Amino acid sequence: MNWLATAIPSSDRDYYQKARDRQAQLTKPPGSLGMLEEIALRLAALQRSETPSVDHVWVSVFAADHGVAEESVSAFPQVVTTEMVRNFVNQGAAINVLSRYVRADFEVIDVGLIEAIDCQGVVVDRAGNGTANFSEQAAMTCEQLEKAMNAGKAAVTRALHQDARLFIGGEMGIANTTSATALAAALLAIDAVEITGAGTGLTEAQVEHKTEVVQSSLEKHQSVLESPLKILQYLGGFEIAALVGAYLYAAQQRLPVMVDGFIATVAALSAVSINPQVKDWLFFAHCSHEKGHRLVLRALEVRPILDLDMRLGEGSGAVAAVPLIQMACRLHNEMATFAQARITTE
Amino acid sequence: MNWLATAIPSSDRDYYQKARDRQAQLTKPPGSLGMLEEIALRLAALQRSETPSVDHVWVSVFAADHGVAEESVSAFPQVVTTEMVRNFVNQGAAINVLSRYVRADFEVIDVGLIEAIDCQGVVVDRAGNGTANFSEQAAMTCEQLEKAMNAGKAAVTRALHQDARLFIGGEMGIANTTSATALAAALLAIDAVEITGAGTGLTEAQVEHKTEVVQSSLEKHQSVLESPLKILQYLGGFEIAALVGAYLYAAQQRLPVMVDGFIATVAALSAVSINPQVKDWLFFAHCSHEKGHRLVLRALEVRPILDLDMRLGEGSGAVAAVPLIQMACRLHNEMATFAQARITTE
Repeated sequence: MNWLATAIPSSDRDYYQKARDRQAQLTKPPGSLGMLEEIALRLAALQRSETPSVDHVWVSVFAADHGVAEESVSAFPQVVTTEMVRNFVNQGAAINVLSRYVRADFEVIDVGLIEAIDCQGVVVDRAGNGTANFSEQAAMTCEQLEKAMNAGKAAVTRALHQDARLFIGGEMGIANTTSATALAAALLAIDAVEITGAGTGLTEAQVEHKTEVVQSSLEKHQSVLESPLKILQYLGGFEIAALVGAYLYAAQQRLPVMVDGFIATVAALSAVSINPQVKDWLFFAHCSHEKGHRLVLRALEVRPILDLDMRLGEGSGAVAAVPLIQMACRLHNEMATFAQARITTE
Repeated sequence: MNWLATAIPSSDRDYYQKARDRQAQLTKPPGSLGMLEEIALRLAALQRSETPSVDHVWVSVFAADHGVAEESVSAFPQVVTTEMVRNFVNQGAAINVLSRYVRADFEVIDVGLIEAIDCQGVVVDRAGNGTANFSEQAAMTCEQLEKAMNAGKAAVTRALHQDARLFIGGEMGIANTTSATALAAALLAIDAVEITGAGTGLTEAQVEHKTEVVQSSLEKHQSVLESPLKILQYLGGFEIAALVGAYLYAAQQRLPVMVDGFIATVAALSAVSINPQVKDWLFFAHCSHEKGHRLVLRALEVRPILDLDMRLGEGSGAVAAVPLIQMACRLHNEMATFAQARITTE
């Protein structure tokens, strides 16, 4: 994974300043577009453009299975991962509806279902037959981690070939909030109880059990969790590793990213731990209802765009925020200036 | 204004329940679309439809001048109201850009600029040459109040003639946060200091002055402020009264409304004070940066969709929320059910 060492370009200060000057000239009270102004400034600086645009959106949903599912940590049985992959291909899931709404390109990648499925339309880029149960052993081997991260890189490469201007990575994998929770706890050096939540809908007793599974896994592997990549290998999932790879490669290639919910945000935290420069390229779509999400967002010191109690994953929250980032660009590019509109400013 | 007494239809419980049953069958963890689910349920019940839709949006921006502007309560001179009306007609303002983005029908109504302007494309429906200075006398006469509210009703009538499915009212009027602040304080029976904010960008000292203007006006008129309509007549603005009329008539005519920022929300509070049934028909787009907005939203016991520190008015925040309410409908209508997708739910 030599490509991980490639430098990530920083955003351009001159374009940021130029964009800020333009915002001050647009026919509105200074600052009155709030967060939409800041989004436009950031994009102008990232794209080195006076007319930032994210009109072409790319959505890659990474699906994989988790060995830890056998610990009864999810409200749904493991077979649902594969069933949902079929649903994605058949255009019936939330992410399909939302992707159509914003006219995004959409693909779903099997990055390690427990068994390969015969289903036309699925991108096959498998790192294994599901991860191992991390409460017993490392979730994946070094080779599997590399394959999974490369699957994310490959998705970004496809997005770039189609001239996408915004990358969204979604995830599907029964038990993957458990993996994300363990990852976040390890990366932030906190106890499982501080961050473990209800996922797709656990009862209080089930959350308690999930907390114990996470905590004992953290303790079991403590001695080897000495780097972000080791943490990802021992506690991650293939789809989460793919997201980490996608975020890092997108930033290397100057492609802005909209980060989805809890699991995607933990992948972002992992990516930032590997290379802090990636953060410039990440927009955070929403704060979900999942307990740990707000905590991870705070650790990243970022402000999400939406707060709608969503907790679905798949990239759904990220796509829901797309119109706002597109509107931020349009406002920046299309509004009249005070001079053009002959507005008295004195 | 006999039409104000017309009953407002309530939302349909059967369609609400039917929509809730459908949401429980869609391929996602129950409740995982958060606020987007609740929006779809409400719209299904309002539209008495199994496939709610707000794809056709109508935006009416009401513009008027305020006598209280002579008390130096705004960061901008009064002439800006008229200048911005020209900007709306020339498609250069934020609301124009946003309306184009969501393909909304757009119109701007002169409901009482200080002087009628000769500008093609403006809907002329004037209640007067600006309001009187309410720190000295009633902002408007009974006849002017009626004219202004009827201007709102007329805008909704135009929207209905074009088969709009969602009504958005915007406002433009230098000094109108002062009027809205006085209205809200009177309606909520609180002191000016609790609610007066910076509007388009006042300094702390200017906010203090504005607070005094509002407080002394409240005290001056106290004895006559015995009903929501009297409060609106004495402290309101023509564009605010037009919004109140529009909201009430839209609800009577079964047309859902997306309410914008502080001033529009105060108009909604006024409408709810006149007829509480109107509230069912109102969606609240965002919580703005204006100090009093959160307070008024809380008094109405509503949760806004967005919280982006916007404070521009014109209907801009309301249009910014349109994609989310449209996505909520699409998700409800287009997602596959568990049975259709053959997902195991056990």
